[in-house]
Amino acid sequence: MIPDEEFIQSDSVPGPSKEEIRCLVMCKAMITSDDIVVDVGCGSGGFTVESAQIAKKVISLDKNHEAIEITSKNIQKHNIQDKVQLIEGDALKVIEQLEPFDVLLVGGSSGDLPQIIDIGIWKLKKKGRILITSILLETRVEAVQTLKNLGLYPEVVEVTIAKGKLMERGTMMMGRNPITIISAVKK
Amino acid sequence: MIPDEEFIQSDSVPGPSKEEIRCLVMCKAMITSDDIVVDVGCGSGGFTVESAQIAKKVISLDKNHEAIEITSKNIQKHNIQDKVQLIEGDALKVIEQLEPFDVLLVGGSSGDLPQIIDIGIWKLKKKGRILITSILLETRVEAVQTLKNLGLYPEVVEVTIAKGKLMERGTMMMGRNPITIISAVKK
Amino acid sequence: MIPDEEFIQSDSVPGPSKEEIRCLVMCKAMITSDDIVVDVGCGSGGFTVESAQIAKKVISLDKNHEAIEITSKNIQKHNIQDKVQLIEGDALKVIEQLEPFDVLLVGGSSGDLPQIIDIGIWKLKKKGRILITSILLETRVEAVQTLKNLGLYPEVVEVTIAKGKLMERGTMMMGRNPITIISAVKK
Amino acid sequence: MIPDEEFIQSDSVPGPSKEEIRCLVMCKAMITSDDIVVDVGCGSGGFTVESAQIAKKVISLDKNHEAIEITSKNIQKHNIQDKVQLIEGDALKVIEQLEPFDVLLVGGSSGDLPQIIDIGIWKLKKKGRILITSILLETRVEAVQTLKNLGLYPEVVEVTIAKGKLMERGTMMMGRNPITIISAVKK
Repeated sequence: MIPDEEFIQSDSVPGPSKEEIRCLVMCKAMITSDDIVVDVGCGSGGFTVESAQIAKKVISLDKNHEAIEITSKNIQKHNIQDKVQLIEGDALKVIEQLEPFDVLLVGGSSGDLPQIIDIGIWKLKKKGRILITSILLETRVEAVQTLKNLGLYPEVVEVTIAKGKLMERGTMMMGRNPITIISAVKK
Repeated sequence: MIPDEEFIQSDSVPGPSKEEIRCLVMCKAMITSDDIVVDVGCGSGGFTVESAQIAKKVISLDKNHEAIEITSKNIQKHNIQDKVQLIEGDALKVIEQLEPFDVLLVGGSSGDLPQIIDIGIWKLKKKGRILITSILLETRVEAVQTLKNLGLYPEVVEVTIAKGKLMERGTMMMGRNPITIISAVKK
Repeated sequence: MIPDEEFIQSDSVPGPSKEEIRCLVMCKAMITSDDIVVDVGCGSGGFTVESAQIAKKVISLDKNHEAIEITSKNIQKHNIQDKVQLIEGDALKVIEQLEPFDVLLVGGSSGDLPQIIDIGIWKLKKKGRILITSILLETRVEAVQTLKNLGLYPEVVEVTIAKGKLMERGTMMMGRNPITIISAVKK
Repeated sequence: MIPDEEFIQSDSVPGPSKEEIRCLVMCKAMITSDDIVVDVGCGSGGFTVESAQIAKKVISLDKNHEAIEITSKNIQKHNIQDKVQLIEGDALKVIEQLEPFDVLLVGGSSGDLPQIIDIGIWKLKKKGRILITSILLETRVEAVQTLKNLGLYPEVVEVTIAKGKLMERGTMMMGRNPITIISAVKK
């Protein structure tokens, strides 16, 4: 994984997800070099940059202009311009126009999570994977229920990370916000 | 428990421990109205104030002058001056002079944890309780090993708390640093 | 707190909640000796027994006959028969008939959580407290949303506990299921 | 990552580490197709099988005969015989004889962790990585201190995972034992 400090960040845009969360999402996404990945609510571009290390193509969406700007900077910093298409706009409308894809990553959903999952699963190729990362109690349940309603079997993993800070008097464990990763495979 | 915001705090003094940690330490300390409690490394006075709600007497120590000042303010704010004796000084020397006590709380130990446990267990009355709260990897192991060497059977509880922040778009879970509570009962 | 092993348990009835969870719920419930406590979905009687150590009266409900039997055994074992009224039946119907009370503990809700909260808040005295313990993603959100709809400000605390198992080669940390405690105070 | 259920397991041999832990260890190990990986205390072969998906060669050690047998079965099941050398014996003696390698994974250490780290770092190539997974309070501290004594800067990550169990009444969060991953890069 790319170290956290290798990403350009902005105070007004969330992310990127920490290294350990990016790592787990990438493991579960099982991206291959033939895959097209869609990154919804790309934020600072953490998943975009990681996906582009492996995928054939990454399409990254955000409706927040500042997020598009930061993601653009990280795309350039990590030299993946050739692989990434960056689109500012509403996820629901954009996804509707896309060709079928292999992996859908949903980091941010601006309150439209059920609809994004619905349209995303429809556009996902057979055996395609969807991964939702959630920091809100409510989106976890929305994700699980929407996926179940679509006849899929979601995997739910809550990840709590603490990192050691090396100090003279010892190793202080610093907690992070717990993140829940909900994922499913299209049948 | 006393809400976190009811404690006077200082940037230069650690603590007080969060409400949930104070609650668990108080449960495990099983303080009664006959008990004398010693609070070593009292910091901002969180355990001192909680203990004084129940105990007959609390003796609170810190070698840091600022900690003594903040604890003093919290003692006054919570109106427990009658019950608390506040001593600025080195824990090892002070404990040696004390009468036997019922409960020993160790929040801060400035690198002397094994010796504080040794002398503390010696001064603890039969069936007295010792509780060590630890944020460092190293002090957890020191506490467990010192208690085992003294023939005691330590209980080790790691507590990870996340609290919900109510926002318009949902309930964001905010992580805290994990705390380990090591405790034992003198035979 | 009462040690876990001091409760009679049954394979077919959930609970009692572990010592640390009982401790946190009791701290947040702030029960006094004047209080009437209602324990909904009392399961094995963990919260019933703890509450009865302090409260004036505890009314414990479960619609599962086996739960009533185990709770009854734990009431006798802990010698709190005088304080506890045990009722087998549907929580919604029973609560409707009760006099106003000070604390409502909801451990089990059999799918009726929003309605139990609604009727419970209605019957709760002013400054009364409600506490819901949840092991399901869905009930956490139901609890938060129902309390918010009632104009209350829920506190959400997720608790993850690991306990050390002392072995010859060291202290193995054994994880527990995370529990979420949602609570609110009636205005 | 390979799903947990794709590993042959034995009641008498620990492991394999769960999917999420294997994923994080693999991310941090940054194995390339040129790398030689040494897996000390290979247990059921979880890290061996994952490493062999990418590395040039994996050398797996365990002093427990049953562990060697289970790992051997998993090597065959995952068809990586060509890449893996499996050695039953004492890690310290075996590592001493090995050519320099790129990655050292330490899952089990039978009480010799400081010595394994010492000899492992000596044999590790420049920019090589060492990763220790620990379930014991004590080995975490041993790993950190040994690495610091060697002038390295250990990263310490404690990982607590809960997985959702889909049930009719909702998604129950099931806790796992927390695992600590300590890692360092040889200068």
